Amino acid sequence: MTISKEIEEAIIESAFIKSYKKGTVLLEEGKISNECYFVIKGCIRSYYIKDGNEITTDFFTEDQSVTPSAYGKKTPSAYYLECIEDTIAGVGTPEQETEMYQKFPETESLTRVLVEAIVTKQQNSLAEFKMDSPEERYVQLQKDRPDLIQRVPQYQLASYLGVQPESLSRIRKRLNKK
Amino acid sequence: MTISKEIEEAIIESAFIKSYKKGTVLLEEGKISNECYFVIKGCIRSYYIKDGNEITTDFFTEDQSVTPSAYGKKTPSAYYLECIEDTIAGVGTPEQETEMYQKFPETESLTRVLVEAIVTKQQNSLAEFKMDSPEERYVQLQKDRPDLIQRVPQYQLASYLGVQPESLSRIRKRLNKK
Repeated sequence: MTISKEIEEAIIESAFIKSYKKGTVLLEEGKISNECYFVIKGCIRSYYIKDGNEITTDFFTEDQSVTPSAYGKKTPSAYYLECIEDTIAGVGTPEQETEMYQKFPETESLTRVLVEAIVTKQQNSLAEFKMDSPEERYVQLQKDRPDLIQRVPQYQLASYLGVQPESLSRIRKRLNKK
Repeated sequence: MTISKEIEEAIIESAFIKSYKKGTVLLEEGKISNECYFVIKGCIRSYYIKDGNEITTDFFTEDQSVTPSAYGKKTPSAYYLECIEDTIAGVGTPEQETEMYQKFPETESLTRVLVEAIVTKQQNSLAEFKMDSPEERYVQLQKDRPDLIQRVPQYQLASYLGVQPESLSRIRKRLNKK
């Protein structure tokens, strides 16, 4: 799918580009969400707090978009979003999105196609998480997103992979020997 | 979001309504997918085969839509879709979808909104799967989709919840005692 130069410029103009320091919390549990993000540079982490422990559910890096479950709704967020690196992002709001769809209906097609691609990716993520052992998940991550392994604190990576930090270091040692 | 009577009728007219006998395989691993489904009555199960074992990843029942990851693409499917009950479904194809969007651009807005809702639901599913113990998953399923527990074979429900069938019966016994 291609978009015209005119629409591309309108998208760029209408999005606010913001930069955030490492450690900035973009969204808190219990809060209303009125912003979605497109990561230009940096890394945003989503996590829940359950029984006092952080459970990391995703990392969003360059060229990935983050739309909170609670975005544009009146319901409070169940999780947190935090910049774990200095981050530059395009920031969208429901009002700006609506205006864009009215002005350039083609952008709604574009969004549909992008969102459908996200659905496919998520389907695969859930299926893989169900099927794979923690070691297989780590090997898959090495293939799919090798940068994450370098960029991200180990305890966050561990809960993302659904294991304890000690299990993650055992997995790494085992794989290094192979 | 509301749609006009005219569009509603056009959607109904353009979809093929088909009925399938229990056991019908709608999609096989390795095959190209050119159909998506909207379940009117019945149940479609998605599953992978890994090391000779079936891993059930989802059940789609009344008013849920199933869009295979491979739908409308040239890539083969990684999983199977099977009707585990006699099923009546609306069947869509990429051609019919494109025609609909051209004729009634509002239907593309509708699709975007629906697909965004699916993204939210999937985000939650993956997060819950990561966070919850098998017993918590079962309790959540009792709340969210109590009908599934009655409709679905236990070994399929077990792999859907990420446990062995024996663990599932232990969980049920434990919960019955409470």
